[in-house]
Amino acid sequence: MKKQEKKPVKELEEFGKKLVLDIEKGRNPTIDFALRSLSNVVFDTKTKTLSLGEKQQQRAFFNVSHAKKFLQTLEVAKVSKNLLDAGKHASLRDVFYMAKRTIPQSNINIVDDQVESDKALEDLELITDCSREQLNINANKMGSVAGNVIIEDARDTINWAKLGSGGWSIPSNVEDIEFKSIKAKYVIYMEKQAVYIEFKSIKAKYVIYMEKQAVWERLHEDKFWEKQNCLIVTSQGQTTRGIRRLLQRLSQEHDLPIYVLADFDPWGFYIYSVLKFGSINLAHMSGSMTLQNAGFLGITADDVTNYDLKKHFIKFKDVDLTRLKQIADYEWFNKNKAWQRQFKMMKDFGAKLEIQALSSKGITFISDKYLPEKIKKAEFLD
Amino acid sequence: MKKQEKKPVKELEEFGKKLVLDIEKGRNPTIDFALRSLSNVVFDTKTKTLSLGEKQQQRAFFNVSHAKKFLQTLEVAKVSKNLLDAGKHASLRDVFYMAKRTIPQSNINIVDDQVESDKALEDLELITDCSREQLNINANKMGSVAGNVIIEDARDTINWAKLGSGGWSIPSNVEDIEFKSIKAKYVIYMEKQAVYIEFKSIKAKYVIYMEKQAVWERLHEDKFWEKQNCLIVTSQGQTTRGIRRLLQRLSQEHDLPIYVLADFDPWGFYIYSVLKFGSINLAHMSGSMTLQNAGFLGITADDVTNYDLKKHFIKFKDVDLTRLKQIADYEWFNKNKAWQRQFKMMKDFGAKLEIQALSSKGITFISDKYLPEKIKKAEFLD
Repeated sequence: MKKQEKKPVKELEEFGKKLVLDIEKGRNPTIDFALRSLSNVVFDTKTKTLSLGEKQQQRAFFNVSHAKKFLQTLEVAKVSKNLLDAGKHASLRDVFYMAKRTIPQSNINIVDDQVESDKALEDLELITDCSREQLNINANKMGSVAGNVIIEDARDTINWAKLGSGGWSIPSNVEDIEFKSIKAKYVIYMEKQAVYIEFKSIKAKYVIYMEKQAVWERLHEDKFWEKQNCLIVTSQGQTTRGIRRLLQRLSQEHDLPIYVLADFDPWGFYIYSVLKFGSINLAHMSGSMTLQNAGFLGITADDVTNYDLKKHFIKFKDVDLTRLKQIADYEWFNKNKAWQRQFKMMKDFGAKLEIQALSSKGITFISDKYLPEKIKKAEFLD
Repeated sequence: MKKQEKKPVKELEEFGKKLVLDIEKGRNPTIDFALRSLSNVVFDTKTKTLSLGEKQQQRAFFNVSHAKKFLQTLEVAKVSKNLLDAGKHASLRDVFYMAKRTIPQSNINIVDDQVESDKALEDLELITDCSREQLNINANKMGSVAGNVIIEDARDTINWAKLGSGGWSIPSNVEDIEFKSIKAKYVIYMEKQAVYIEFKSIKAKYVIYMEKQAVWERLHEDKFWEKQNCLIVTSQGQTTRGIRRLLQRLSQEHDLPIYVLADFDPWGFYIYSVLKFGSINLAHMSGSMTLQNAGFLGITADDVTNYDLKKHFIKFKDVDLTRLKQIADYEWFNKNKAWQRQFKMMKDFGAKLEIQALSSKGITFISDKYLPEKIKKAEFLD
């Protein structure tokens, strides 16, 4: 199992000590870190992910245009340190309220809008080289999972195969936290005190990730994961960071391929694109988010023809066509013949199609025929 | 434990037989059921829920304005019968695709829009006196639960206290299905073949239902349910039918009071209103959805003052004020002095406040101080 080497508390302390040193030496306290802007987002053709380029930025305390952001960065660092010290987690919204304090002898709040604390946290990820999750800060909780997996999480041993019709509810934070700090004058790192999710046993050949909870319930009721020896994971709509990390850990630590099942529309393609290649917003996190061995399972343009689904087409609106063009132009798609063929066919259809249209073929058509056939033929778009 | 006496397959068969009889007798096939329109929605002051009045409607096959709806009603009845016969469930979207077939020798589809199959299903609930869930049709899956409860669901025994940081993912359908039909020439009802959720053991004094997943994760991490001997349930945004039924079953079968924790805004009040008194759309389902013993725990106008939270006010927009006025005029609120006081205070504040504003008081303030104090003082709005 690949373990995280970073110690968030130590990183935060080093960050603080560096600033104290600046002050003691009579220097302008400054923070240096990679520039997070579109001009510095590059597609790394080796790792095949969106990542940050070489450009750096500097944030200085004695600089009128930097001072507030400087303070905000320090404030969220303090909030994160408090959380780590207490062994507690908080949501992005909580962090906003914790950081929204009034600067003494003024009527100025450190942050007035969650966008400010969110951005400061993304900067802090770069400064400390720790993910927000490692800094004990969570986003939304979403999604469910089922399959032959036994994990240990927060001292409970959980069997994903024995959770009835509901499955396990995926927490917002799935990191394997190895170190916990203790409230004391000095910090002692204690390994394994607050171990989060640890995979004890996995019996599966692959993972299917689907955008729709209803499809997950279909496959779960049909015991698809049992019959096909796989895991089934869902969110609703956009994939949360918790789920992306869970998929990456399954893929990297256990060599499981991830197959993506989404609607046949530009947004379905985009879900796959983000999972596999990363996104502009999280370019600085690509290393811990992207899925090198993900494949797009469907719905494809060929499925529409092979399974006779045209009857269920939903006609394109202008916005669909615009989005399709944008996606077709992505650097990681624009020279990929198989994908360009899909984009062209979708454009020619002038229509999209939902996964659930497969239900018109029979209640369990997706579990009994569509998925087994596609997986047997290994018909994945890369 | 209160058991459902209705047998959905039997009800559907009786519905079909009645129509066959009409045809054999040379009568115009007709369906009679309660009128589902605003003019027939009444607030029942005895049960304190929104329900349907006495008005009836008739749907006849030989009536140009009824014929299509008549067919749609029969079609969804057929889909439901197929699901029950196969012992399978499907989502509302699946049902739409299953019902979207072309009438032979025509180019007319039975349904063209999900609104049509959804409405036909609501009618079918009235016709058969079975809930959509009993007819094996599910809506969205959402939400998580934790606490000292052991259930049996789909033959798995699940301990809600032993599920790590994620908790149990609540399925879309939580009915205790006692009867399963078998694919055969005649139907044999087999008790306990597909038992869904059965409560085996419950150790809790009350249930806290919260609108926000992030608040649930806060309470779960703080082991609030363990310390306070309660259950914690969340959805995200609107409460799904699955969660409403789960809460009702906990409340009715195990006499647990349900405390609602929501934002201090008109929408937070509305979440409570729907849970306790029902909604216009589901007036025909009030009996199996509403929570007689629910209480609004917070955030209240008094909390804003008592816990010094005004700093975190979010100013009202016009739409907030309009919504507040609508809610204040509801029949079940307009003579309730305690609620009218809340509405007036909110109006005077001209502002709303989020639950998470409590985080400004400390990471675990909500678990250590706010909730224990409120629950000890039993400060609930009724």
